[in-house]
Amino acid sequence: MRTFNVGILGATGAVGQKFIHLLQGHPWFHIAQLGASERSAGKRYGDTVTWIEPVDLPDAIANQTIQSCRPEVMNEVDFVFSGLDSGVATEIEQSFAEAGIPVISNAKNYRQHDSVPLLVPEVNADHIGLIAQQKFTDDHSGFIVTNPNCVCIPLSMALAPLHRRYGIASVVMTTLQAISGGGYPGVPGMDITANIMPYIDGEEPKIGLEPLKILGELKNGTVQFADFPVEATATRVPTVEGHLLSVTVSFEEKPASADEAKKVIRDWQSPLEDLDLPSAPKQPLRLYENPRFPQPRLHSYQEGGMQVSVGRVREAEVMDLSMMVLGHNTVRGAAGCSILNAELLARKGYFS
Amino acid sequence: MRTFNVGILGATGAVGQKFIHLLQGHPWFHIAQLGASERSAGKRYGDTVTWIEPVDLPDAIANQTIQSCRPEVMNEVDFVFSGLDSGVATEIEQSFAEAGIPVISNAKNYRQHDSVPLLVPEVNADHIGLIAQQKFTDDHSGFIVTNPNCVCIPLSMALAPLHRRYGIASVVMTTLQAISGGGYPGVPGMDITANIMPYIDGEEPKIGLEPLKILGELKNGTVQFADFPVEATATRVPTVEGHLLSVTVSFEEKPASADEAKKVIRDWQSPLEDLDLPSAPKQPLRLYENPRFPQPRLHSYQEGGMQVSVGRVREAEVMDLSMMVLGHNTVRGAAGCSILNAELLARKGYFS
Amino acid sequence: MRTFNVGILGATGAVGQKFIHLLQGHPWFHIAQLGASERSAGKRYGDTVTWIEPVDLPDAIANQTIQSCRPEVMNEVDFVFSGLDSGVATEIEQSFAEAGIPVISNAKNYRQHDSVPLLVPEVNADHIGLIAQQKFTDDHSGFIVTNPNCVCIPLSMALAPLHRRYGIASVVMTTLQAISGGGYPGVPGMDITANIMPYIDGEEPKIGLEPLKILGELKNGTVQFADFPVEATATRVPTVEGHLLSVTVSFEEKPASADEAKKVIRDWQSPLEDLDLPSAPKQPLRLYENPRFPQPRLHSYQEGGMQVSVGRVREAEVMDLSMMVLGHNTVRGAAGCSILNAELLARKGYFS
Amino acid sequence: MRTFNVGILGATGAVGQKFIHLLQGHPWFHIAQLGASERSAGKRYGDTVTWIEPVDLPDAIANQTIQSCRPEVMNEVDFVFSGLDSGVATEIEQSFAEAGIPVISNAKNYRQHDSVPLLVPEVNADHIGLIAQQKFTDDHSGFIVTNPNCVCIPLSMALAPLHRRYGIASVVMTTLQAISGGGYPGVPGMDITANIMPYIDGEEPKIGLEPLKILGELKNGTVQFADFPVEATATRVPTVEGHLLSVTVSFEEKPASADEAKKVIRDWQSPLEDLDLPSAPKQPLRLYENPRFPQPRLHSYQEGGMQVSVGRVREAEVMDLSMMVLGHNTVRGAAGCSILNAELLARKGYFS
Repeated sequence: MRTFNVGILGATGAVGQKFIHLLQGHPWFHIAQLGASERSAGKRYGDTVTWIEPVDLPDAIANQTIQSCRPEVMNEVDFVFSGLDSGVATEIEQSFAEAGIPVISNAKNYRQHDSVPLLVPEVNADHIGLIAQQKFTDDHSGFIVTNPNCVCIPLSMALAPLHRRYGIASVVMTTLQAISGGGYPGVPGMDITANIMPYIDGEEPKIGLEPLKILGELKNGTVQFADFPVEATATRVPTVEGHLLSVTVSFEEKPASADEAKKVIRDWQSPLEDLDLPSAPKQPLRLYENPRFPQPRLHSYQEGGMQVSVGRVREAEVMDLSMMVLGHNTVRGAAGCSILNAELLARKGYFS
Repeated sequence: MRTFNVGILGATGAVGQKFIHLLQGHPWFHIAQLGASERSAGKRYGDTVTWIEPVDLPDAIANQTIQSCRPEVMNEVDFVFSGLDSGVATEIEQSFAEAGIPVISNAKNYRQHDSVPLLVPEVNADHIGLIAQQKFTDDHSGFIVTNPNCVCIPLSMALAPLHRRYGIASVVMTTLQAISGGGYPGVPGMDITANIMPYIDGEEPKIGLEPLKILGELKNGTVQFADFPVEATATRVPTVEGHLLSVTVSFEEKPASADEAKKVIRDWQSPLEDLDLPSAPKQPLRLYENPRFPQPRLHSYQEGGMQVSVGRVREAEVMDLSMMVLGHNTVRGAAGCSILNAELLARKGYFS
Repeated sequence: MRTFNVGILGATGAVGQKFIHLLQGHPWFHIAQLGASERSAGKRYGDTVTWIEPVDLPDAIANQTIQSCRPEVMNEVDFVFSGLDSGVATEIEQSFAEAGIPVISNAKNYRQHDSVPLLVPEVNADHIGLIAQQKFTDDHSGFIVTNPNCVCIPLSMALAPLHRRYGIASVVMTTLQAISGGGYPGVPGMDITANIMPYIDGEEPKIGLEPLKILGELKNGTVQFADFPVEATATRVPTVEGHLLSVTVSFEEKPASADEAKKVIRDWQSPLEDLDLPSAPKQPLRLYENPRFPQPRLHSYQEGGMQVSVGRVREAEVMDLSMMVLGHNTVRGAAGCSILNAELLARKGYFS
Repeated sequence: MRTFNVGILGATGAVGQKFIHLLQGHPWFHIAQLGASERSAGKRYGDTVTWIEPVDLPDAIANQTIQSCRPEVMNEVDFVFSGLDSGVATEIEQSFAEAGIPVISNAKNYRQHDSVPLLVPEVNADHIGLIAQQKFTDDHSGFIVTNPNCVCIPLSMALAPLHRRYGIASVVMTTLQAISGGGYPGVPGMDITANIMPYIDGEEPKIGLEPLKILGELKNGTVQFADFPVEATATRVPTVEGHLLSVTVSFEEKPASADEAKKVIRDWQSPLEDLDLPSAPKQPLRLYENPRFPQPRLHSYQEGGMQVSVGRVREAEVMDLSMMVLGHNTVRGAAGCSILNAELLARKGYFS
């Protein structure tokens, strides 16, 4: 595989920092340009960022000059990752796509756009076919691909094998989401120390909608959404990394037993195996039998944070099946999924 | 009301300490005797206990000599509160009841006994009629009354008005339970700091069963259990006090709207109002409209920890209604409920 | 004692909320007016504030209309409490004092002004004599009185009896400060969950200076500062309320033993006893012998948060004496001290 | 380097688990035998341990049969690591040494034994010369080497360059220690959630003594201890990994400035550089200029947890110099240091 020069939009934010962290030593992608707000443009990255990653800010990054998020300035790149705030992402991402620079975005703005893939490669890699419908440039050289919300990625991965086998009829779930999901400065310490916030603004509608697109089928150039209701309660708890989901599901065809459902999860093979993508976990879904597992602090980082954990799979008194799902919210659930998306697109030849 | 001399069984444990704390300055109940294990008997309480309550250990208590939990020794009391471990509660509580000393117990051992009330006074005060069925003594002078599990008390209080009005058909719920529920030393710091335990041993079966007895109807000397399944996932989170419950309910008769259901909750009057019980909250159930409420740290202590909070009442995508319920687990959900039970019994003349 | 109408400057902030909370049911002081920024003026308090106190926002307060912090508007008060941010406190507090309205301030702006008392009533009540030097109004009807920083109040209280008896020569100390000290939203959850911030901006210089004024002597209309260096390291830790201080002291005259020093602390009587001030703790300083005490969660709230705890008093290998000091940072260390200051001034007839 | 078969004494405990974790993939050391209590002997490791490391328990380890900690049973090893509890370490470690099996111990029992090195390789590698004084076997084939307490390792590393250059006269320090230092189950969640324990039993005497041996000089077969008093206050705070130390030092010769002292720290070269030890950090001591650094959550894991961080170096108002020191308590401060000790000994040919 050739190497690609990449830009990062929103490079000083929490997601941008995670992109920088995860791309250190990446075999294909080299960070060439860092974009942030006009206010920061022209400054040295190391002097501007409040670095919160638990690794050193690399000197080579610290010494780069921040640029404004404009395609005419950030023009030495093969594509960009976007960690932009939703307040500005719509126009900036569009401007890059129109300039022929692909945008691999973690922002929510284009997730529900008809021709934009909402991509979790292990689940719906074929949705990249939607790119052919995009109109940003005549030759499809510029396009946008998004990854889902940090809850919806592990949720969809855990539900995918069950949905394919039994057909999901409905979901009732409660999330216990980590503080890092709120960005930085994000959730006030006073709100979350020895406390729970019973509500996360804007989160539940995403959980109700995104899985339906991810688990939908691409037919004739459109995604036909899966069709089941999700009743989600989203809470914030005092954990740092790893969203834990308590999920109860009813199916169109009821599994014969919890053991059978577990076997379906355990037997799910990564459809990416032959592609040899650098960030793809060997085992995307891991099933625990110990009822004390999975735990956010112990299991979020398995396979570099890219593996999703499933535990406590059991027959439910109401509906059909209950289980716990855990995913690293800022790796698997955000920047790491974006990078995997870009790896898939690179392998498939989408970055000319 | 006359005053009563009370004993505390299991006085050195976490529940026993909470009894001592809550009974300071109680207008009716005076702590006369403290019972603990044979190993502690004969020692000064203040020298034996690892006091963990956030108030001073009163000198008058510290200077008492611990006694063994035998009715022939603890015979200067009108009744006893039991904070005994379940491993020893069965025999000890029986011995007191047989000796004619009523036992107001927080232990789980007799909760499902046919003739033992599982009592939350605001919900099923009439269940004290079961006492007449008990056989511990010929004259019913000795008896056992229990309070439910720390999750089931606030849960039953929140469900009671809805059940009476609409008839509950099924419940799917996830608990976010505080560390204090595990006693002392209880949950290891390493398990629960910036972490979640996705499982609490033995908790989910209680949540599936106890509400059915509490919400059951006393007819002809037996409780006819309510009949609905509860699918519960019980988790431990890093909060200190206050169990938060994420509850989704379907009803036999669907509420016309969330607003109607809220009105039912808001209009629920304490059936204890005329009894003037010292520990009864003026408003046992409080409804919050702010979606950020209730929070364990801010709202658990309302009305001295005896009020249960309800928030985020909303129509559900799946089933009928979702809501958050919060109750102080060691006050409302344990020792405080026991004390209220005793106050009800005292008022009704059960302590001769 | 007559009652006084009081105003609160900065009423929507964290300190302002604590004033409102603590003044509920106060026998002398009645909240008459609430002042906040021009942006909030004219709005209903309950619609504007993000209420973070662990008690209900009283309806009577929620329904008040916020006013701007100008003396010509807030003119129905006998005096004001100030919880203003330091960015605006200088001018606003001056304007009230010049208008003849006494300002009892928690802000830092006037703490080091020559004629402004830096007041901890148990330690330096006589410093109110400084008010006679103030020039805000000709008749001294308008004046400013401040309370110290949240670390310096408990620190000065613990050091006062030792300083009087042995003369402090130097102090080396490390603080473990609670999150609430940073206000709201204040310290980001990501910075402080399972983490320590090894630095609090601007804190250490205050700790080096304020105790010297508090422990100074008023002579001829000026405070002659105590004269000893303080080497302070200020850290933020994941506690909610209660600043814990690890303090090592050398004295001009070395105590004969730790026991002797403990007796000096234990024998210290509140100099306020005869004044019968509503917020004065019966025992301002409490000595613990159990080396596991004091703990922020268990002991910060003793005597309504107004008592300071001292523990682990022992002879030091280096310097003379080591000890732990704990004070509730937002009650004793902020709003509660302001209220006690006002009570002292009311008793002494300063509010005409 | 040849490979060595190693045994782990106390393999099911927290330190034993960390040994197993850190030795995965070690180029020289292969885990051959796992020793634990007689009660566990004969059982499969994976069925017995409560695994708390944040990585998978390797299958090859899980399937091993636990053996009793007796040298006649654990006789297929070249040496053993000891993570034994101090209650049993004295006799067991002696029995292995007498059987000719070197013991690289994290237990405290032999740390102050005259002929036992208390080893931090970057500081006092030459102390391995003490082994020649040991009498466990005639040919010195069996011996004991210990590593210091989890506070004393990073403390000694940070003090070493300053001590060599300026001569330490005295130290006043406060520790903010992580929960993992208490083992498992260890510190109760109720004690440490949103709370601080102001005392750690037995910790302060170690901090007062161990650095003096580590920084001492080996002369004529004995360590001549460094001679300065350490006044330590040891606290437990709600962090998971990384002990943070607030340290103030006076020197025999005062540094010209904080900058000069910083240069001494920064210029300190690892004396292990030429030895090419697998676990040796490239930069054992790292100096931060940002006053917000070091933080336990962000910086404990630098260089795999083997690097010690120093920050906030500044001239002190009292004594001479203040600074913050951070070290990973279970890696650098325990098992990781033991492994580095073994690597040094292997390189020097001590494992025949």
